Amino acid sequence: MNLRDVVDKLVDTLRADASERDLAGADPTREVALLKESGLLTLLIPAGLGGAGESWLTANAVTRTVSAADPNVGHLLGYHYLQLWRGELFERPDLVTRLRRETVTGNQFWAGVSNPLDAALELTPVDGGFRVNGRKTFATGAAVADRLVVSATRTDNDEKLTFVLDARADGITYLGDWDNIGQRLTASGGVVFTDVFLPADDVLGPQPENQPPRLSLAALGFQLALTQIYVGIAEGALIEAADYTRHRGRPWFLSGVDSATRDPHIVAGYGELVAQVRAAGALTDDAARALGSAFDRGADLTEDERGEAAVTISAAKVVATRAVNETSSKVFEFVGARGTASKYAFDRFWRNARTLTLHDPVVYKAREVGEHFLTGEFPPFTGYT
Amino acid sequence: MNLRDVVDKLVDTLRADASERDLAGADPTREVALLKESGLLTLLIPAGLGGAGESWLTANAVTRTVSAADPNVGHLLGYHYLQLWRGELFERPDLVTRLRRETVTGNQFWAGVSNPLDAALELTPVDGGFRVNGRKTFATGAAVADRLVVSATRTDNDEKLTFVLDARADGITYLGDWDNIGQRLTASGGVVFTDVFLPADDVLGPQPENQPPRLSLAALGFQLALTQIYVGIAEGALIEAADYTRHRGRPWFLSGVDSATRDPHIVAGYGELVAQVRAAGALTDDAARALGSAFDRGADLTEDERGEAAVTISAAKVVATRAVNETSSKVFEFVGARGTASKYAFDRFWRNARTLTLHDPVVYKAREVGEHFLTGEFPPFTGYT
Amino acid sequence: MNLRDVVDKLVDTLRADASERDLAGADPTREVALLKESGLLTLLIPAGLGGAGESWLTANAVTRTVSAADPNVGHLLGYHYLQLWRGELFERPDLVTRLRRETVTGNQFWAGVSNPLDAALELTPVDGGFRVNGRKTFATGAAVADRLVVSATRTDNDEKLTFVLDARADGITYLGDWDNIGQRLTASGGVVFTDVFLPADDVLGPQPENQPPRLSLAALGFQLALTQIYVGIAEGALIEAADYTRHRGRPWFLSGVDSATRDPHIVAGYGELVAQVRAAGALTDDAARALGSAFDRGADLTEDERGEAAVTISAAKVVATRAVNETSSKVFEFVGARGTASKYAFDRFWRNARTLTLHDPVVYKAREVGEHFLTGEFPPFTGYT
Amino acid sequence: MNLRDVVDKLVDTLRADASERDLAGADPTREVALLKESGLLTLLIPAGLGGAGESWLTANAVTRTVSAADPNVGHLLGYHYLQLWRGELFERPDLVTRLRRETVTGNQFWAGVSNPLDAALELTPVDGGFRVNGRKTFATGAAVADRLVVSATRTDNDEKLTFVLDARADGITYLGDWDNIGQRLTASGGVVFTDVFLPADDVLGPQPENQPPRLSLAALGFQLALTQIYVGIAEGALIEAADYTRHRGRPWFLSGVDSATRDPHIVAGYGELVAQVRAAGALTDDAARALGSAFDRGADLTEDERGEAAVTISAAKVVATRAVNETSSKVFEFVGARGTASKYAFDRFWRNARTLTLHDPVVYKAREVGEHFLTGEFPPFTGYT
Repeated sequence: MNLRDVVDKLVDTLRADASERDLAGADPTREVALLKESGLLTLLIPAGLGGAGESWLTANAVTRTVSAADPNVGHLLGYHYLQLWRGELFERPDLVTRLRRETVTGNQFWAGVSNPLDAALELTPVDGGFRVNGRKTFATGAAVADRLVVSATRTDNDEKLTFVLDARADGITYLGDWDNIGQRLTASGGVVFTDVFLPADDVLGPQPENQPPRLSLAALGFQLALTQIYVGIAEGALIEAADYTRHRGRPWFLSGVDSATRDPHIVAGYGELVAQVRAAGALTDDAARALGSAFDRGADLTEDERGEAAVTISAAKVVATRAVNETSSKVFEFVGARGTASKYAFDRFWRNARTLTLHDPVVYKAREVGEHFLTGEFPPFTGYT
Repeated sequence: MNLRDVVDKLVDTLRADASERDLAGADPTREVALLKESGLLTLLIPAGLGGAGESWLTANAVTRTVSAADPNVGHLLGYHYLQLWRGELFERPDLVTRLRRETVTGNQFWAGVSNPLDAALELTPVDGGFRVNGRKTFATGAAVADRLVVSATRTDNDEKLTFVLDARADGITYLGDWDNIGQRLTASGGVVFTDVFLPADDVLGPQPENQPPRLSLAALGFQLALTQIYVGIAEGALIEAADYTRHRGRPWFLSGVDSATRDPHIVAGYGELVAQVRAAGALTDDAARALGSAFDRGADLTEDERGEAAVTISAAKVVATRAVNETSSKVFEFVGARGTASKYAFDRFWRNARTLTLHDPVVYKAREVGEHFLTGEFPPFTGYT
Repeated sequence: MNLRDVVDKLVDTLRADASERDLAGADPTREVALLKESGLLTLLIPAGLGGAGESWLTANAVTRTVSAADPNVGHLLGYHYLQLWRGELFERPDLVTRLRRETVTGNQFWAGVSNPLDAALELTPVDGGFRVNGRKTFATGAAVADRLVVSATRTDNDEKLTFVLDARADGITYLGDWDNIGQRLTASGGVVFTDVFLPADDVLGPQPENQPPRLSLAALGFQLALTQIYVGIAEGALIEAADYTRHRGRPWFLSGVDSATRDPHIVAGYGELVAQVRAAGALTDDAARALGSAFDRGADLTEDERGEAAVTISAAKVVATRAVNETSSKVFEFVGARGTASKYAFDRFWRNARTLTLHDPVVYKAREVGEHFLTGEFPPFTGYT
Repeated sequence: MNLRDVVDKLVDTLRADASERDLAGADPTREVALLKESGLLTLLIPAGLGGAGESWLTANAVTRTVSAADPNVGHLLGYHYLQLWRGELFERPDLVTRLRRETVTGNQFWAGVSNPLDAALELTPVDGGFRVNGRKTFATGAAVADRLVVSATRTDNDEKLTFVLDARADGITYLGDWDNIGQRLTASGGVVFTDVFLPADDVLGPQPENQPPRLSLAALGFQLALTQIYVGIAEGALIEAADYTRHRGRPWFLSGVDSATRDPHIVAGYGELVAQVRAAGALTDDAARALGSAFDRGADLTEDERGEAAVTISAAKVVATRAVNETSSKVFEFVGARGTASKYAFDRFWRNARTLTLHDPVVYKAREVGEHFLTGEFPPFTGYT
């Protein structure tokens, strides 16, 4: 089966019961199993190591398409790609190769634990490595993952390290406390680490305060992944609303037309939204290319080059945020009153969008774009910029 | 206790657990009991008949204020006022007086059964009255009401009659099939009538195809009530979001301010929305005055006068629809990511707004306003215009 | 002739050649003459003093209606009313009475010179009064006025005084340097004062740093007047665009309708804008009532009462600003390509709106509204708030 | 000088006095001379024929960049490229080669005469060719062109032909009647043809009612060119407004910042607009690629492939229309009141946008996009779709 067919099959499977699964709100155990069955977890891993050897842009496109069918799964998958991808930003090619082989062998699903707004986890040096202690909120997918990428600070010298852990290692507790209005199946609850052993060899590397531009690309990767999911949600809302309009929509009795698909306001309304979402998608494509190019520059990447990618991603995020929130709300006007029945769960698009677009405040993304346009300044290197 | 205090007390009671009640989604039995306890059900009934003798504008204001605390209850109350009020549009002053007295005596809650898009109920003449048969969808509040206002068509001569029924009469079955994403506590499910006996004396009157302008004010009353609820929902979203911003909001780490209430984008953002909602409210006040004046014109009401009120109400509905959908979504940006926790149920404002604003398509309201502005034509008399 | 007829006649006269006059861009000499002929300049002056004795709300309504026909003239007239009205805020009833009588006798047109962002004018005490020196930018209508209300600071004790001057007094030079894209006929250029004699008796009073709430109402009056003009411009744009659509509009060849007035997008588009503008107008009516009530409270006016009026005016200004800028641009879509011919000067609505809505930044008005909503704080007393 | 430098030089020259030239509103004689000096007229002509041999996408990019500096000139240049390019859609390779050579030799500027909403021009067969008679409105650039591409209908058999004419040929009169609020320097007035001789060899070919998909690409080319200019105008408005904000902007006295470039609302405001315009630009890039690919398919182009390109272009046009109208109006809020001085002519961006975006109604573009999304139908082949 070629990639297109693989993705189509997964998408069909997810879409078939997306509303029921949203209403049930269970942990995404079955969803991760579907990802494993699909073979998509190894998409980015080089063919020589057993993966599909597909490109960064393909991984981005798959994330978006899967998000259109189920943004919970798109979120899990996009972050999985990101965690695997960011390993290369450190200088541990041996470790990265080992991890990739293990990912292929074990068909492993990856997640991260790194909410920058929490206090840092603590690393205490012990024989052969470290002990990890502390607590983090909002670790999407961690509870259903095989591997975790985690950041923590050494208690002896304040150095911040990034490393991998077996997600089932002793001492890791998943709080299961994610109960939010959207992205309900992302297992985004908190994680507690109690004397978890970290072998020294599983450290990807330090994250110095003054990160080099290349290392700081990880934060941009998260911003881009979120943006892809936003675009995907908007696409999904349009796809499913149009399906309803076609098959269940009723023309308004004062409209003078005999089908909802002939109502001029519905037709033009879809057109307006489709156009906006396509524009958001096109700029997000630019953003994916920009980050891919920055990545490909390797250690030569300059602050300005990194900055250009950052601003493009922020611009895409601003537009995608507006597009997905507007689209997921406005489509109800093309669906009509009966489409608000709970069984359709059409509100999930908006709830997912509204929840995920608050990851960090979009107006500060607009400020990055405006600041650069006005003054030439680039955003600082933080966990969000 | 004066009216202001009565309303304040009800509002405080409703707001205290509005999110829990929304999540539970039970029938509004307790809510109707609260309305009865409050004494607000007899607000519009003349003092001489035992009511509070308040004005139409006061009833409108109460509907809006209660909707801001809980739009389910605002919806029930607004429709209750409307059903009582519309009795006067018919020429049965004796019946209206009797019904008012009974409403006071029994502290009765009223609802209607009249979705114009369904097939009409059937009235078969029998000794002393009629038998009512048929099925209607979407009868807000009927399942928890004491009295119903119902419309049906005579099988013998196709005359359409409006009448009242005891909501507990034999042969009335409430389907309990309202399970929608918003207005979850409005008991808006369907009703089945099986040989329900209608005493001849309980007929308010005929509704001829070519209704006189006065009789056709009922449809405008529903449009106005919906508009009041929209404004109320928008006010409620602002009130509760601001409460969160004040007490739980966190300033963004890149904002340079030490409190969410000092973030310039949050402050200006609230201001923009508050202004829009106030404008929608001001135009809705105009609309309430317009309908009140049309009502006061009695049998002298002309088509043009009725039309002016209709267009004002439609204009208010257009603006209120935009305001409430935008406001209930946008406030999340002033609340932030943690405000999406299910326990706050902040999404209920948007879900309620999104559901209720689809009652009939807003773009056709805009067309009424535009048509009148361009050509001077007034909307036709229908169940929605 | 009653007031309605007077206004209608003026409006018809102004509308007849508004586009030609905008293109010519001359000083509003003829326009002020029309105001004088109309008798509207004495509208607010009590009947006992020879005026029409109309109310504040009527003056507001007239300003808006005239602005819809020609916002240049509406601007001149609204400011004229304001300058006359604000005299009462000082404690010089004798002077106010004299000025009103003279205004009636001379059919005088008033204007002000007070741009708060400029350096203050200087007052040097001399025998019998003061000498006024200095320069001010942006003094709408001054060059074509009979009377000026001016503020300046005493050089001997830094006291700020407000006073009236004969607009033709020796030493006053009008720079004629207003050449902007909008409000072209408002004679809003700068004024230079060179040793202008101010008789002591023409001083209205001091404006202390800590103004009492009542005195500070003048700033609110300007904000309200601007808001009325914004609403008027929006109304005017709709009126004239609809006239074009009716008489010159062509249906698009793919529309399937035979008249532009039957194009569903044009009809709904007008409806949407009309509704928004009516909402802005309704809130501005509230604002006018709020300021009128604050004024009527006299010396008892509290800071909070003043603050409520200020916030209502700011809210109206926010909504009216959005409405007029959107309306004056969007109507082009209902007019079509041929409506962009220079001879129609349809762009004047947007140019007038865009220019006048920059009087002070609207986002800071939104901040006042939001600040009050979030924290209960009222705006400070400044020349703009 | 490489292409980038050539374009930069032209852009600098145009921008230096764009506002003065807009105010003067003369025919673009000097502007066409600048285009000739720049060498850009032969950009698309193959190197083997003496041109620069640049790609379709490069021509699109140049059109956009020049439009940002002066959309009058961008309009002239974009249409010039289009007229040259569309020659290849016919089956007259010999004629196309001759015309290209002559264009290089004569450094010719091209324009078209083809407003589809006018009555067709008439072609009367005569010895050696035809006589052209009739009148067309809105022929951008024709009056300052060297060569015209014209369409007309044969009087003997109703066949519609497209052909080239020497713009200075006997019998062609330029009415010089373009006097509109925007795109003032595009010489877009009408043209009258009186017995103009058309040599038979200068006929590009017939335009049958049922055009083959390939031939119908010309209409899409115009839609795309307009879209590029819209994006360019939006970019230009941002560039020049930012320049003003940086060098002349003043912080608002209540803002608490010491520079307009530090006002949070200005910074975020620019960011929001820059992001929207970049998204419009990215989708327009997609549209240019789509049309380029459709062109490259040659005679094999199917209706569906043509349709996909058409819908992509329409989507881009919808988004660019919204972006440019919003941007060119909104930037005034970042410029402030003094920026409305006529000498800056900042309103030209909005006037140009508003005028050009009415070329055909944008809502019908949205309908094409929505129709395709809902039903799979593609737009018909017309002069606008």
